[in-house]
Amino acid sequence: MTKAGKFIVVEGLEGAGKSSAMATIRNWLQQQQLTVVCTREPGGTPLAEKLRTLVKQVDDTELLAPETELLLMYAARVQLLTNVIRPALANGNWVLADRHDMSSRAYQGGGRQLDEQLINNLRQTVLGSTRPDLTLYLDIDPAIGLSRAAERGELDRIEQEQLAFFIRTRQKYQQIAATEPDIVTIDAAMPLAEVQQAIVAALNRHLLGGLHG
Amino acid sequence: MTKAGKFIVVEGLEGAGKSSAMATIRNWLQQQQLTVVCTREPGGTPLAEKLRTLVKQVDDTELLAPETELLLMYAARVQLLTNVIRPALANGNWVLADRHDMSSRAYQGGGRQLDEQLINNLRQTVLGSTRPDLTLYLDIDPAIGLSRAAERGELDRIEQEQLAFFIRTRQKYQQIAATEPDIVTIDAAMPLAEVQQAIVAALNRHLLGGLHG
Repeated sequence: MTKAGKFIVVEGLEGAGKSSAMATIRNWLQQQQLTVVCTREPGGTPLAEKLRTLVKQVDDTELLAPETELLLMYAARVQLLTNVIRPALANGNWVLADRHDMSSRAYQGGGRQLDEQLINNLRQTVLGSTRPDLTLYLDIDPAIGLSRAAERGELDRIEQEQLAFFIRTRQKYQQIAATEPDIVTIDAAMPLAEVQQAIVAALNRHLLGGLHG
Repeated sequence: MTKAGKFIVVEGLEGAGKSSAMATIRNWLQQQQLTVVCTREPGGTPLAEKLRTLVKQVDDTELLAPETELLLMYAARVQLLTNVIRPALANGNWVLADRHDMSSRAYQGGGRQLDEQLINNLRQTVLGSTRPDLTLYLDIDPAIGLSRAAERGELDRIEQEQLAFFIRTRQKYQQIAATEPDIVTIDAAMPLAEVQQAIVAALNRHLLGGLHG
């Protein structure tokens, strides 16, 4: 019997260790001999990558309105859902996403303080029924995360926001994670080996039952 | 006393004569010694012009999902509203727009048959209270309009749609125009001089009272 693919998302602030977590999850999926399609947001299709560039580039000539940013994030997401995520799941593949809808709720809802009703309207009307089976939220103090991100090099437009922006973003992340059962919070301040253990434990607990059941 | 600026929009299918109508209205505004800011959609700011290119270019590598197209149109619109239209009106200037929100309702709602509730959600949540004082809808049989547009040169991605798409778009245009009092329908199949007369008559009737009252 062919197993249906599942949709796993990694979320968290800059410097929370998302790339490392993606590698851990990819390994785990490969050990289960599952085919995995990896995506990142915003991006993941030629058009969505162009939108990624538009929202991330620092442009001194023009202020990017917060509502424009929000709509571009959802435009990129819908394009990725339609052209990559849904077809992959329909073909029985697993999907591993570096950021998805929770990022918009946290960054544009929490960080930018955009109206929650507006965001929920967008989510309900454009995302359809495709929702992650498991989201791993890597929780980190923004002061620590940002200093890690800064070590990697030049900061993009969003990464250049003030600390208060990321504190609000983290609060919204935590608030969402506390209320939704398919989101597992991982303490990303732990040593790397312990973070990896916690990720694998979450994968085994939430996804293995479905695999071998 | 400084008169408040007003917001005039020209709408219609490809080949309906929007550019010519824009020129007629610009002349009329200049005769009234009014300062006018002209915009076009999608576009009108550096970022919004990039979005215009993305939605109009023919790209064989990737299907543009209808919902993505809709969100990009609203992203470009919000950017233009925030950075150009609202500041211009706030400064007492008039704004003359080549397409605005009615285009999304007609093309994405009528042509693409996207859910009206989704479009209305977007309109209500991102457009705010900035609405046109007068919209001149140039009504044309799409078969005539498209043949005029084709004479101008290469057709963009949207202009390459089938005739049925434009028939649905026109029906939606007509349906909206029939129910909203700030929209004046002009028969764009008339000779140019008569179209111009009809436009000037509409401007005098709808806007002059406010100017000299």
